[in-house]
Amino acid sequence: MRTSIATVCLSGTLTQKLHACAEAGFDGVEIFEPDLVAAPESPEEIAALAHRLGLSLDLYQPFRDAEGVSDESFAAVLHRARSKFRLMRRLGIDTMLVCSNVATATVDDDEHSAAQLRRLGDEAAPYGVRLAFEALAWGRYVDDYRRAWRITELADHPNVGVCLDSFHILSRGHDPAAIEDIPGEKIFFLQLADAPALTMDVLSWSRHHRLFPGEGAFDLSRFVGHVLAAGYRGPLSLEVFNDTFRQTDVLRTAQQAKRSLRWLEDQVARRSGRLSRPGGPERLPDVDQPTGFDFVEVKAEDAGEVDTLLRQLGFTFRGRHRSKPVRLWAHGPARVVCNENLAREWPPTLAAVGFEVTDPKAATQRAGELEAPPVFRRTYAGEQPLPAFRAPDGTEVFLSGAGDGEPAWVAEFESDDAGVGAEEPLLTGIDHVNLAEPWQSFDEAVLFYSSVLALRSGSSQDVAAPTGLVRSQVIRGENGAVRLALNVAPLAYDHPRGFPQHVAFASSDVMLAARTARARGLRSLPIPGNYYDDLAARFDLPAGLVEEMRELGVLYDRDENGDFLHFYTETIGGVFFEVTQRRGGYDGYGAPNAAVRLAAQHVHDQRLGRR
Amino acid sequence: MRTSIATVCLSGTLTQKLHACAEAGFDGVEIFEPDLVAAPESPEEIAALAHRLGLSLDLYQPFRDAEGVSDESFAAVLHRARSKFRLMRRLGIDTMLVCSNVATATVDDDEHSAAQLRRLGDEAAPYGVRLAFEALAWGRYVDDYRRAWRITELADHPNVGVCLDSFHILSRGHDPAAIEDIPGEKIFFLQLADAPALTMDVLSWSRHHRLFPGEGAFDLSRFVGHVLAAGYRGPLSLEVFNDTFRQTDVLRTAQQAKRSLRWLEDQVARRSGRLSRPGGPERLPDVDQPTGFDFVEVKAEDAGEVDTLLRQLGFTFRGRHRSKPVRLWAHGPARVVCNENLAREWPPTLAAVGFEVTDPKAATQRAGELEAPPVFRRTYAGEQPLPAFRAPDGTEVFLSGAGDGEPAWVAEFESDDAGVGAEEPLLTGIDHVNLAEPWQSFDEAVLFYSSVLALRSGSSQDVAAPTGLVRSQVIRGENGAVRLALNVAPLAYDHPRGFPQHVAFASSDVMLAARTARARGLRSLPIPGNYYDDLAARFDLPAGLVEEMRELGVLYDRDENGDFLHFYTETIGGVFFEVTQRRGGYDGYGAPNAAVRLAAQHVHDQRLGRR
Repeated sequence: MRTSIATVCLSGTLTQKLHACAEAGFDGVEIFEPDLVAAPESPEEIAALAHRLGLSLDLYQPFRDAEGVSDESFAAVLHRARSKFRLMRRLGIDTMLVCSNVATATVDDDEHSAAQLRRLGDEAAPYGVRLAFEALAWGRYVDDYRRAWRITELADHPNVGVCLDSFHILSRGHDPAAIEDIPGEKIFFLQLADAPALTMDVLSWSRHHRLFPGEGAFDLSRFVGHVLAAGYRGPLSLEVFNDTFRQTDVLRTAQQAKRSLRWLEDQVARRSGRLSRPGGPERLPDVDQPTGFDFVEVKAEDAGEVDTLLRQLGFTFRGRHRSKPVRLWAHGPARVVCNENLAREWPPTLAAVGFEVTDPKAATQRAGELEAPPVFRRTYAGEQPLPAFRAPDGTEVFLSGAGDGEPAWVAEFESDDAGVGAEEPLLTGIDHVNLAEPWQSFDEAVLFYSSVLALRSGSSQDVAAPTGLVRSQVIRGENGAVRLALNVAPLAYDHPRGFPQHVAFASSDVMLAARTARARGLRSLPIPGNYYDDLAARFDLPAGLVEEMRELGVLYDRDENGDFLHFYTETIGGVFFEVTQRRGGYDGYGAPNAAVRLAAQHVHDQRLGRR
Repeated sequence: MRTSIATVCLSGTLTQKLHACAEAGFDGVEIFEPDLVAAPESPEEIAALAHRLGLSLDLYQPFRDAEGVSDESFAAVLHRARSKFRLMRRLGIDTMLVCSNVATATVDDDEHSAAQLRRLGDEAAPYGVRLAFEALAWGRYVDDYRRAWRITELADHPNVGVCLDSFHILSRGHDPAAIEDIPGEKIFFLQLADAPALTMDVLSWSRHHRLFPGEGAFDLSRFVGHVLAAGYRGPLSLEVFNDTFRQTDVLRTAQQAKRSLRWLEDQVARRSGRLSRPGGPERLPDVDQPTGFDFVEVKAEDAGEVDTLLRQLGFTFRGRHRSKPVRLWAHGPARVVCNENLAREWPPTLAAVGFEVTDPKAATQRAGELEAPPVFRRTYAGEQPLPAFRAPDGTEVFLSGAGDGEPAWVAEFESDDAGVGAEEPLLTGIDHVNLAEPWQSFDEAVLFYSSVLALRSGSSQDVAAPTGLVRSQVIRGENGAVRLALNVAPLAYDHPRGFPQHVAFASSDVMLAARTARARGLRSLPIPGNYYDDLAARFDLPAGLVEEMRELGVLYDRDENGDFLHFYTETIGGVFFEVTQRRGGYDGYGAPNAAVRLAAQHVHDQRLGRR
């Protein structure tokens, strides 16, 4: 489908925005008036630049406070409108967004508003301008798209139609089904925005917290389905006011925006089979959710301390890569690659995550259609090429075929001391991976991981660290085979990437794993005695168990289905490990313990003079 | 009055918080349970440290979900409570905050809750523990302090009283007058928080956006007046959950918190004369608001370009300081000092602002009681010592006596070319000063300027810049003689202090001032032609005036009382100047033009390769 985007979504100057939109592959843009007013280029220059870039100028917006005014005030509206129609002719734009009145309306009457819109339509017609009337969620009298359509019907003018904006409709909880009552040719424009589920005044929510489709909580595929069913054939256009996107790299944000529309188109196509037609929404390649983690990779100039930690956790050294300074460790199906290739000055860092997928070819094609940037690297894959993409946070995401035995790439690792540590497996795989996200790209990362890997994103929560609140959001498969926790560090955090990251292994007996690791010399993260006193107060646990947890630094949580035991290693550079045990149907991540862990890491680092 | 603060207000570890509270001069603290749970120190160590630091431990908090539960669930509550009473004995704390039930309440009955509180009181008594019952604004059944008091009355137990929290009461719009119906000795504790006027769910508002008194919109002096009138004699204690304070320097935040209580005590004392008694709230020294700006100072290694700009704006060179590399420029009552003393590697920076006050001695004493950090510097003051304080943003704030003629310190500047530029004055003074605030200290700056200078703070607004939203708030005197605009730059902004700052001069004829300055070679900030097309559409201005403004780069705004013309110079280092003219009763700052100015500066810098 054709795609468009309002310039207000992006940072920079108007010309920078146009260049970025073209580069990201948009077909057109909406010109947000303040962007034009603040631009030194003349309207003719802007029109010529857009033409050269292959961008259509789809909408001029917004024209405010047009209807519902007194007859005396309407003269000034007409003066303003004519001036803007002349400007639109200079720009070559044929559609103007007219918002429902917020500031100057004094007449709450459909006929009155309709008459004024009709008059504006008469004025617009000679300029070839069409007016798309939109109900703002906070309009003085008109705050519902159904009323905006009623007024438009009454205006009964070929140059007057409606604009539908998903935010204004869904934020108010209005049922979008009645969109299908509007003739498609009278829907002059469609604006799309997602948003997180917040309870706040709708104006602030709209101005600061809109998101691109797939990043928030709105059901946009249903919404667009209604609009397409009504017969709308114009572009899918994004209008997202977001405090973060206003200050992030203009091209990256434009690419993120484009990805969100591609994802949405797929969702719409899947939901509304009846809408499939030439030019209609197209599906992405069908993929299943990943069936598990293939491996994680720690990159470091010197990964020696990580090797030690893995050995203490019971991992078996599986060998060196035949051609690169890369080592493989395994424990049951949990595989960790230590990569010292091209890693000069890298502290130990979680650099790559491999996912097992049922159809790597389709998954790769899907990632490509979502414009995930490919990574050309074959570090440990050697002759076994694994497709890989770079996530917004810099993590390299590898896709490999799910199979019964070990993946083929493992054979590229040659060992001279295989078997060391090959005892009874205490770890049963990778439970989850915890990634640090720069604040600038958090929403982008949510969209990336959930759209490229076909995962589901949950709601976010805050955890208190000594240096501020950490925002955390889980992205996971339906069956829990793959779980990612995305975390945004407090701004003041001084680690280059924000935060240390970690890999949580699954265990069938975390107490035994902790005791065995300790016997091998592991220093687990020290947990305060006060934590165990509190644990004993909160839960009716056997005193012996609490004492054993205290001794081993094991933490505890419980939900309505089961319980959770886990411990942490010390941090090496930017990475640490966790060992977890889910009992019963426990489905969380020990969130109530996260603040204790963060404080313990902070104190531990301070004692060692690391901050 | 005695002062206390909850450890949750501050960043860092529990021991760091205790040290900071003591250093800032608090008498006691509330121990926030998660801070203790995450601390490696034993309760005895914490108690001993607090004792050594001279801090009383006033409250242990919070104890959640205690009442309104089924009889079966209550056994677990008692188990938990007894464990906490033992802990409190180890800590030496005698009061526990018991919040109204949020998560586990199933019985909506005052008698039932009262019976459970009574039982808890029986359990607490042997430990010498008192329970302060508090209605959370989002309590499941009990969400109003009047109901919490009713239940407490029914409980009728000497160890059970109430805790009053200004946020929970004022956020719900509950009238605090009924506090006076509660016997003072049954008010076991008082927690204070301010907050901005936001419309959002009260839980998020409370958890993220609380502020220290004087930084928000609540009428706290009235609130505290009722509590004192009821007979409460305990400490004024702060409980402020704030995302920013959680990540800023612990000592600075503690000092800010202490300043807020000193300010509040003064407000309470002024409002409630009847409450004056030994140990009651004490006034700060009486001061009037500043009557005007004495001077502004630009500090730079080389201020030559600033000298040029001032000469172009019609300033007269008034001489060099007799002992330091400091120059004075004046234009009517507007004085600008160019300071090259100890300014190595300083780009031109707005470093100091001098205020004229009617009683410098009282104003200095007030600043001292508010613990404004003094600045020991006598750069251009020479033998004329001017008291000065450092604001949270680093600006040096000078206080000098208001007089009829020029201030005495001017005589320390000696000129060999006095008279240059001494034409008919086009500028009539300093209209306002625009300061850039780091995001970490914005609220602190609002409190500092408004409390130390006895000014009034307005509401904040956002302005869109090409690099993100700029948050702006005006602090001003009632009569407008002194106006400061505090601005927080977008995070991505790359200027060391965030943003260039500026001084806006007042003019009686801005068009003449612009034309005259241009004749002297001034390059004003280029304003886009599109701006003037939009201006002509929005306002019914004479075409000739619009064309003249276009030629001179003059911007325009209008409010219900009058209108406003203004233009900007180019930016030199971190500073630029504005010339303004208020006509009629215009009382704003040209806010609708701020986005145009920010974009023009951005484009101008880019053209010159400055970003």
